[in-house]
Amino acid sequence: MTEPPTAPPLSSTPRTSLGRKKDRARVDRAALHEVLDEALICHLGLVVDGCPRVLPTGFGRDGEVLYLHGSSGARSVLAAGEGPQVCVTVTLLDAVVYSRTLNDHSMNYRSAVIYGRPRLVTDPGEREHGLRVLTEHLAPGSWEHARQPNAKELASVTVLALPLDEASVKVRTGPPGDDPAEHAPGVWAGVLPLRSAWGTAVPSPDLAPNTPTPPHVAHRR
Amino acid sequence: MTEPPTAPPLSSTPRTSLGRKKDRARVDRAALHEVLDEALICHLGLVVDGCPRVLPTGFGRDGEVLYLHGSSGARSVLAAGEGPQVCVTVTLLDAVVYSRTLNDHSMNYRSAVIYGRPRLVTDPGEREHGLRVLTEHLAPGSWEHARQPNAKELASVTVLALPLDEASVKVRTGPPGDDPAEHAPGVWAGVLPLRSAWGTAVPSPDLAPNTPTPPHVAHRR
Repeated sequence: MTEPPTAPPLSSTPRTSLGRKKDRARVDRAALHEVLDEALICHLGLVVDGCPRVLPTGFGRDGEVLYLHGSSGARSVLAAGEGPQVCVTVTLLDAVVYSRTLNDHSMNYRSAVIYGRPRLVTDPGEREHGLRVLTEHLAPGSWEHARQPNAKELASVTVLALPLDEASVKVRTGPPGDDPAEHAPGVWAGVLPLRSAWGTAVPSPDLAPNTPTPPHVAHRR
Repeated sequence: MTEPPTAPPLSSTPRTSLGRKKDRARVDRAALHEVLDEALICHLGLVVDGCPRVLPTGFGRDGEVLYLHGSSGARSVLAAGEGPQVCVTVTLLDAVVYSRTLNDHSMNYRSAVIYGRPRLVTDPGEREHGLRVLTEHLAPGSWEHARQPNAKELASVTVLALPLDEASVKVRTGPPGDDPAEHAPGVWAGVLPLRSAWGTAVPSPDLAPNTPTPPHVAHRR
């Protein structure tokens, strides 16, 4: 998760420049990294037979590279042919914004959209590295705790790498933006935050009795 | 949110039939409705200049119709021309699944994928109805509490309607599926649930003092 000191600001191609609500755009890479590091899944878009397809899939970031897992999503990318264009979108919903007028109801959110052509990772060393990045994103601490993949398992894994070259970030925060002229007695306006939280770990039914829940699971943040 | 008694089961076109992990498929409409009714945002995929684009956007369901809001996502659909194909994907992440082996780490989730050509809602009555469905999905209770849109506001709203004709639902639940041969002393396996919860409502800074937080916000589930 090192940050190359030379990383350029986010690109401003036409499709990554906001047409509406430009004040919600963020152009620093730190904002992009924050969204990617907090979310657990992305939505991977590709074109199949001329039609759009959007699949949820796991991912992980290492510096300016996004690794995508060999799930059905990544396999669809490969099936779409050599070096297809994809769009990866990651969204964090933070709150519902209640306004005095229904027209001004909104959401607080952080979203990132990345365009590019993912590369199939073929080098065994990079494949193991990519899998480790993916695992540590999904389940931090698991790489050291569980059995690591053997050569046969590694060979069967599909990992794609997508550079974070062309990306946009959009953020809405704060209270509703409605007109003071709309203030009316008794009509409430404000923000209702939505939070994600880990529940209590549920051991596998076939786990040996008295196996303690390890700290990387029990105290996950 | 009426359920037409004649609604057929989910379609089984090639693109809505799972190629892998078929045991995760659900083919009843109730499963589709449950995913759509619980999630607050969808990811809308479309093809723009031959490339995929995926945008997060609000939505609401009424029976077998999905309404999409006149956000940047819906405007992109309209910009893509007359009756473009879209893919709407909705994902609920329920848990991270920890296995004894990294290869078997997974997620518990419920996801729905809907394909079709959305229709621009032009009838004023249906547009108001669609906006009400969207509002009550985002902020139940707000339609009666806040000021409803006037004729001018209604005329400026874009609402798209997408029939739930071609859709698939995929669900993973339960403990890890790893091999008993992998059981090892001290290695934990199980499920860590991820839950969403509403926080405490934050009144708008310009709200008149002593305005009570209404029940539809304070006690939202």
